[in-house]
Amino acid sequence: MCAAALCIKKQRMDQHIASVPLEKASRLINHGPTILVSARHGGVQNVMAAAWACALDFAPPKLTVVLDKIAQTRELVEQSSTFVIQVPTVAQLNLTHQVGTRSLFREPDKLVQSGVNLFEIDGYDLPFVAGCSAWLACKLIPEPHNQETYDLFIGEVVGAWADTRVFKEGHWDFEGAGPGWRSLHYIAGGHFYAIGEAFSQGDGP
Amino acid sequence: MCAAALCIKKQRMDQHIASVPLEKASRLINHGPTILVSARHGGVQNVMAAAWACALDFAPPKLTVVLDKIAQTRELVEQSSTFVIQVPTVAQLNLTHQVGTRSLFREPDKLVQSGVNLFEIDGYDLPFVAGCSAWLACKLIPEPHNQETYDLFIGEVVGAWADTRVFKEGHWDFEGAGPGWRSLHYIAGGHFYAIGEAFSQGDGP
Repeated sequence: MCAAALCIKKQRMDQHIASVPLEKASRLINHGPTILVSARHGGVQNVMAAAWACALDFAPPKLTVVLDKIAQTRELVEQSSTFVIQVPTVAQLNLTHQVGTRSLFREPDKLVQSGVNLFEIDGYDLPFVAGCSAWLACKLIPEPHNQETYDLFIGEVVGAWADTRVFKEGHWDFEGAGPGWRSLHYIAGGHFYAIGEAFSQGDGP
Repeated sequence: MCAAALCIKKQRMDQHIASVPLEKASRLINHGPTILVSARHGGVQNVMAAAWACALDFAPPKLTVVLDKIAQTRELVEQSSTFVIQVPTVAQLNLTHQVGTRSLFREPDKLVQSGVNLFEIDGYDLPFVAGCSAWLACKLIPEPHNQETYDLFIGEVVGAWADTRVFKEGHWDFEGAGPGWRSLHYIAGGHFYAIGEAFSQGDGP
């Protein structure tokens, strides 16, 4: 017997996933992608989408994420003091929209219905979403005033990984990877943009 | 006689700029663009680039921005308690990189050298950067602990505008505007991505 949310088959880490040095972790979210937040506590795990996440510091790497009071993921973050921020891809557009609109409170099988597969990384008791391009394991830095007043949570990044098919040697390679690997950037009402063309300083007019 | 930073000719608001309802202001930065922060106090004004800015709330709209202690713009924000967050375009790639790497402390003519033109909006004593796609006038919500510990500043958006050639009727139209209008998303080392293709929920696999 198991809670529905835990009945997802646990997968091993994909062979394409490689760790990213912590000093380069901010690069994984520096371009402002919509992200997925996942957390686990007391036999319950959940995943939600969030457009409001942002790097906060380089060393040690920190980030902010806004978690609404109605989100069950927020409860799990507060209870476990750990969470994962991961970067979904264009191939995960509908998954991202589903986990951003369905509620685990109302639908105990939300993750299955949303097509989420979770996997484990040795040494981290956290649910990682398979198929993403990058993952940041975070430890909550408790700031009760920010959390209560602004729904604003601060995490220290304690582990970082990326799929080497789209992030290699410290750099995104959206140009070289297939179009399904591009990051998603949510606007509103189910409308997203994918990240686009690369430019370097000096390319402009 | 005037301070070099104020010797930039003041321009009127462009005819293409229209106000955006405050309840839709978050859409202007929801996709995670790199932004420009500008502020003015005591006859000094400055503009800096920042990748670490993020929406925080819808109503009233709020946002966060990380301002390093070495930035003169931070001093101006702390002194005046107001600032502008604006969304630069691909056409402003080099301007964005220049204001993100030059320092007004070391180069009093930083803005001129960076190609910045400022304009005024009636009712707001703030320096707006011409040529951007969107502007958010912000009032600082003082949070000394966040500012000192994390370099994290919270602003309430009190006015919002966009260029109707790229944001119309509450929606970005990067598809319809020329490629120079796309937002910039900074990674590191002078490397940016432009925002790319539009997708709607339901388009995915």
